[in-house]
Amino acid sequence: MAKVSIPKGTRDFSPEEVEKRNFIFNTIREVFVRYGYRPIETPTMENLSTLTGKYGEEGDKLLFKVLNNGDFLSKADEAALNNRDSNQLIASISKRGMRYDLTVPFARYVVMHQNDIAFPFKRYQIQPVWRADRPQKGRYQEFFQCDVDVVGSNSLVYEAELVQIYDEVFAKLGMDVEIKINNRKILAGIAEAAGIADQFMDMTIAIDKLDKVGLQGVQDELRKKDIPESAIATISKILEVKSLGDLKPHFANSPSGQKGIEELETVYEYFDASQAANEVNFDITLARGLNYYTGCIFEVKAKNVQMGSIGGGGRYDDLTSIFGLKDVSGVGVSFGAERIYDVMEELKLFPEQTGTSLKVLFIAFDEASHRYAFRCLNKVRAAGINSELYPEPVKIQKQMKYANARQVPYVVLIGTNEVDSGLLSFKNMESGEQEKLTLDQIIGKIK
Amino acid sequence: MAKVSIPKGTRDFSPEEVEKRNFIFNTIREVFVRYGYRPIETPTMENLSTLTGKYGEEGDKLLFKVLNNGDFLSKADEAALNNRDSNQLIASISKRGMRYDLTVPFARYVVMHQNDIAFPFKRYQIQPVWRADRPQKGRYQEFFQCDVDVVGSNSLVYEAELVQIYDEVFAKLGMDVEIKINNRKILAGIAEAAGIADQFMDMTIAIDKLDKVGLQGVQDELRKKDIPESAIATISKILEVKSLGDLKPHFANSPSGQKGIEELETVYEYFDASQAANEVNFDITLARGLNYYTGCIFEVKAKNVQMGSIGGGGRYDDLTSIFGLKDVSGVGVSFGAERIYDVMEELKLFPEQTGTSLKVLFIAFDEASHRYAFRCLNKVRAAGINSELYPEPVKIQKQMKYANARQVPYVVLIGTNEVDSGLLSFKNMESGEQEKLTLDQIIGKIK
Repeated sequence: MAKVSIPKGTRDFSPEEVEKRNFIFNTIREVFVRYGYRPIETPTMENLSTLTGKYGEEGDKLLFKVLNNGDFLSKADEAALNNRDSNQLIASISKRGMRYDLTVPFARYVVMHQNDIAFPFKRYQIQPVWRADRPQKGRYQEFFQCDVDVVGSNSLVYEAELVQIYDEVFAKLGMDVEIKINNRKILAGIAEAAGIADQFMDMTIAIDKLDKVGLQGVQDELRKKDIPESAIATISKILEVKSLGDLKPHFANSPSGQKGIEELETVYEYFDASQAANEVNFDITLARGLNYYTGCIFEVKAKNVQMGSIGGGGRYDDLTSIFGLKDVSGVGVSFGAERIYDVMEELKLFPEQTGTSLKVLFIAFDEASHRYAFRCLNKVRAAGINSELYPEPVKIQKQMKYANARQVPYVVLIGTNEVDSGLLSFKNMESGEQEKLTLDQIIGKIK
Repeated sequence: MAKVSIPKGTRDFSPEEVEKRNFIFNTIREVFVRYGYRPIETPTMENLSTLTGKYGEEGDKLLFKVLNNGDFLSKADEAALNNRDSNQLIASISKRGMRYDLTVPFARYVVMHQNDIAFPFKRYQIQPVWRADRPQKGRYQEFFQCDVDVVGSNSLVYEAELVQIYDEVFAKLGMDVEIKINNRKILAGIAEAAGIADQFMDMTIAIDKLDKVGLQGVQDELRKKDIPESAIATISKILEVKSLGDLKPHFANSPSGQKGIEELETVYEYFDASQAANEVNFDITLARGLNYYTGCIFEVKAKNVQMGSIGGGGRYDDLTSIFGLKDVSGVGVSFGAERIYDVMEELKLFPEQTGTSLKVLFIAFDEASHRYAFRCLNKVRAAGINSELYPEPVKIQKQMKYANARQVPYVVLIGTNEVDSGLLSFKNMESGEQEKLTLDQIIGKIK
């Protein structure tokens, strides 16, 4: 018998882990719903044609492809077979691929169901995705993504709303975070002000690395791209700006820059930073690599812990055009659930007892008491209390060992005396205290 | 641009559908948790070696295999390639398969984590599974299973508990069902009483078809298996028995039969049928094809609707032995979530408003009112009410159209008068009534 195992990069989740993960997902979901967002779910397998070419060459390599069923070789590309060309063969033996992210399936969903959707369409989606990355600490081949988007409106109300959602979710999770905001139009403004509008992407990619390589490194990167020293000087000066007010003079001749400032000011009109539980900061150096962003961009960093960004997103003006639906503006953010989990573990932020924890275990000393205990158990469950009965009236040590393993806060012990008197032995497992109470008194205490 | 689509047999779930599906899953989950069961999750992809051979030859064909990444042909079985033998090739180009059910992964999980588990291990699992079945009405290639099991104890307390769980869940869902109970030892007893113990499986398979083919059909089937007329007569007589009491005399010389009756009597000692919301009936003709069942077996049928069984399960004594762990007895049942959904749709049992529904939409007539409405919105959301603001102060008809599409019960209309007076126009969308109220009054009304 070979030792059993699961594929590298995949995980089993124990009860403790699932309960903690659900605590995160339920907290996020509760806020999404309160803000009027609704869930959709898309299939694990999409047509490979829907996925390929959407994530760059690297992405295509990391897609998990599902082998066609039946005699797949009968329709296989003969040339590819004879040349032993794996890449060329794929299309003819695999029609389906596994979901790589939630963005492309969402765009596909909107295009496919556009006639049934009431726009603006506020949707959230919490589902796993799969990537054939080399497994390593903190990187898995199956992991959850958690996205919230609204498509079909240009209103900046949603930018403000999404910042509020970030703020509320992390406050509820007990996490102290910094929410950074910028606008791609402001980055375009920097390029315009520096007279290198045509090298906007080069500049953005360089600025995106500021965290890692510092200003000096960014400047070197800009030089590599043959951006003139004068422009580099202008860019460097602007990157030091800390407020929208100080930024304005730099954009005197940059319509894009002015528009970017105007958009952020509108967001701040809606969003009252003084009400926020977390720091919400304008950060002109925030760039967000993804080049489908066109307006406001967001990123969230956890404080008091070493960890990359735990959330990010922004405004995109043309997501659904990859599937033929033009001019649908959208804005959305995502929560890095796996990293959030790691942060909460490191900072011990998970509550010890949740609504899903076992509250009381019944323990019986003999068969008759066991039957009696089961009837008590029914009353306790009817009262909505998570509870169970040890299945046999075996040695009390063994039953208490199980109580400890389940980390149950209360135990009710029942023997002949308890059955006769109707007064049950109620033990607080934390304090060790034990008292004789009626079942109704016990139900009252636990609730 | 090709028309976008998803693979045959897979589904997108709209917000309405996800919310209804979650209503079912959350109802089931709430009961599981109250009975002390805890969730686990296993990876979508298992090693193909874990899955193959566990579901019979048919099952192996229906497994979705995931193509190895990279240059998979470099390690491909040359002979299989040259013979164009798809079946033989699979093992060398696909290491992973997609979860086919929740039972085998659960057994694998228990064996793999046996040293971390506190037995008896009460677990539930609600996850999708994938089967390459030919898609047809009501049959999908991706669908959810919903299993609850306890392993590591022989106690019949759990049989009683699982019947209670069935009864409670369906009561909470508003479904009227019949829960059938039998015991494989009673079926063994019939075989013994008929003197054909060696043909137990043939007999069970025949009895399993009683619903479809009737007694006559079962008798013909038994004849086909060369079961003597005398035995067929005995079997037919016993199949008419309606109560455990009437069954006893037939099993005077059948130890298995007597044990089966004794077990069911114990279950009924724990389980008080008089407390049940649904019919719970002993049904001697219930067989449950799966031959890993060894004790009590269960099946649930919905009333007032044409539909196969919507749940089933039983006691198994040797599930984990397929992965080398012997003598772990378990018992479990599953809920046919997809069928339950169809029944609830057909009988219109889904609640119109749930905790996740949008409760109020704010509508503004001009920019200034829009800003004002957004501040009101924040107060309403802070009060825990699911609410949103139409993103722009456009024509009221357009905003009301959206309100109707979202089926929101209340709308708050805000223009200059409302801003000046602080009295907002609160409209009940069902009755059409409209009144002027302060924001606090509105919050009070909605809560």
